[in-house]
Amino acid sequence: MPLSEFDLITRFFSQRGAARADVVLGVGDDAAVLDCPPDSQLVAAIDSLVEDVHFPTGSAARSIGHRALAVNLSDLAAMGAQPAWALLALAMPRADESWLAEFSAGLDALARQHGVALVGGDTTGGKLCVTVQILGFVPRGAALTRSGGRPGDALFVSGTTGDSAAGLLLEQSRLTVAAAEQAQWLRDRFRYPTPRVALGLALRGLASACIDVSDGLLGDCARLAEASGCGVVLDYAALPVSSALRAAVGEERARELALTGGEDYELCFTVPAANLEAFAARCPGAEFSCSRIGTLTQDRGAVLQRGASVMQVSHRGFDHFG
Amino acid sequence: MPLSEFDLITRFFSQRGAARADVVLGVGDDAAVLDCPPDSQLVAAIDSLVEDVHFPTGSAARSIGHRALAVNLSDLAAMGAQPAWALLALAMPRADESWLAEFSAGLDALARQHGVALVGGDTTGGKLCVTVQILGFVPRGAALTRSGGRPGDALFVSGTTGDSAAGLLLEQSRLTVAAAEQAQWLRDRFRYPTPRVALGLALRGLASACIDVSDGLLGDCARLAEASGCGVVLDYAALPVSSALRAAVGEERARELALTGGEDYELCFTVPAANLEAFAARCPGAEFSCSRIGTLTQDRGAVLQRGASVMQVSHRGFDHFG
Repeated sequence: MPLSEFDLITRFFSQRGAARADVVLGVGDDAAVLDCPPDSQLVAAIDSLVEDVHFPTGSAARSIGHRALAVNLSDLAAMGAQPAWALLALAMPRADESWLAEFSAGLDALARQHGVALVGGDTTGGKLCVTVQILGFVPRGAALTRSGGRPGDALFVSGTTGDSAAGLLLEQSRLTVAAAEQAQWLRDRFRYPTPRVALGLALRGLASACIDVSDGLLGDCARLAEASGCGVVLDYAALPVSSALRAAVGEERARELALTGGEDYELCFTVPAANLEAFAARCPGAEFSCSRIGTLTQDRGAVLQRGASVMQVSHRGFDHFG
Repeated sequence: MPLSEFDLITRFFSQRGAARADVVLGVGDDAAVLDCPPDSQLVAAIDSLVEDVHFPTGSAARSIGHRALAVNLSDLAAMGAQPAWALLALAMPRADESWLAEFSAGLDALARQHGVALVGGDTTGGKLCVTVQILGFVPRGAALTRSGGRPGDALFVSGTTGDSAAGLLLEQSRLTVAAAEQAQWLRDRFRYPTPRVALGLALRGLASACIDVSDGLLGDCARLAEASGCGVVLDYAALPVSSALRAAVGEERARELALTGGEDYELCFTVPAANLEAFAARCPGAEFSCSRIGTLTQDRGAVLQRGASVMQVSHRGFDHFG
């Protein structure tokens, strides 16, 4: 007997994620009813993953469930917000029980990690398209934005970038890596990205601007600079590249991927000089692993500094319709 | 030059819908920042429209924009909530400017009508799939749910049902109607459904349970009854059928469509005997046009009463995977 939409929701999407006392009414009615914390502002983002656009056909269902939530958690992290609730809209060609079990397990595990309750959703037929809408909170006035950077502010990025792009190439069999362990690690950087929620929270009151790196580091930090009315100088040598990526594709290609690869879900943010000491104390390298990669400038535009040479760059990062 | 994702969002999705003072940060950052009203609960719903599933290929873009918001407003109406903010996730095969202008005009007009601001979104390539997430408010504890009905409560439905199903048949050229004006009216009932937001607000404190009619009246009122731990007796003769529908398909088929057609976006709700007088006073027929179509019962299950004959019905309404 085929699974009805009702059974499907009950079996795979009820009681998912964390149990939260502020969920007055969750999955199962026309809408969810939620208690907002006092003295807070609501932070809301929505992001879709489409088959063949954001992940290859045949990707592991668990990874799709994880990523659909992760990309949204990353948006909240970039605002310095504490995530709370998520809603899911799932279009899929058929209701395959083992696929759904894996998908919902991937989403559930990451939701629990971050204390997020799945409070609503919609399932429908159609080509595979997963949309997650996430809701979270910041204390009033504490949200990080893209627009608060000022000339002279130091530019940082968390973790390493470019790994996810290499991982996708591996998933697509467009890259081969001899060392199985490194290949696996790179693949997992694509399949199971880590949203930097704790870092976003730690940056409240310290960072002047923040953006999550989804479309390529170069494009996204140029976007942050533009929103802040600044330019940016990036230090090529300071780009954080993992040893796995370097081993897989060589130094030169690794830095290219680190700049333009996309789907990193790291945070790129600026810290004013006056806050650098407090930042170093609150975000120690052992815990957060952030690299200083450049500086905001008065002059508009993005500039890449490599030894003595300076390149004006115009790349705007990955663009779905460009 | 093709339209970039950034230009597309700026041109078609910035400053859409109503201007609201509680939008601290709207479209253009990683997430929206919003001020929740005090003493309220947040109400959140998400719903997708997929091409070839929820509307025929080649449907008017303005209608798709309208419907994507309308189906979500209808969910909020069913909770008795005041809508406030919407987010949009749009997957589409290419960025066609005239299509986008029409789509966003349809969404914008309905959003303004209901005081809703578009505060965030995501656009991506892919098969046409429109997901809207809507946020609104109810005073603490005032949300209408599906589960509050009790045996003896009177069952009502707003407007007329079945028109939208006939309108879709017309859109698909699977039905012909001689009278052009009637055909147009039926088509528009499908293309431009009216979410019953004002009725939902008026029902606060009066209705014991409420659901929006999206999957067919019979299935949705059976769902309400089930969630309330009741059964339901429906009066076949009392089903509200429009004169246009009756003229188009005849009496018998009209009532069949009214029962099972789907996509009506009317409200189906129950009123306890003690509130019937207050309900008649607050929701006069001239303004809200609601019909009493049945009664909740102690015995589970849905029963259709037609003259002297009584039919046990098992239809669960439209089901995307059944």
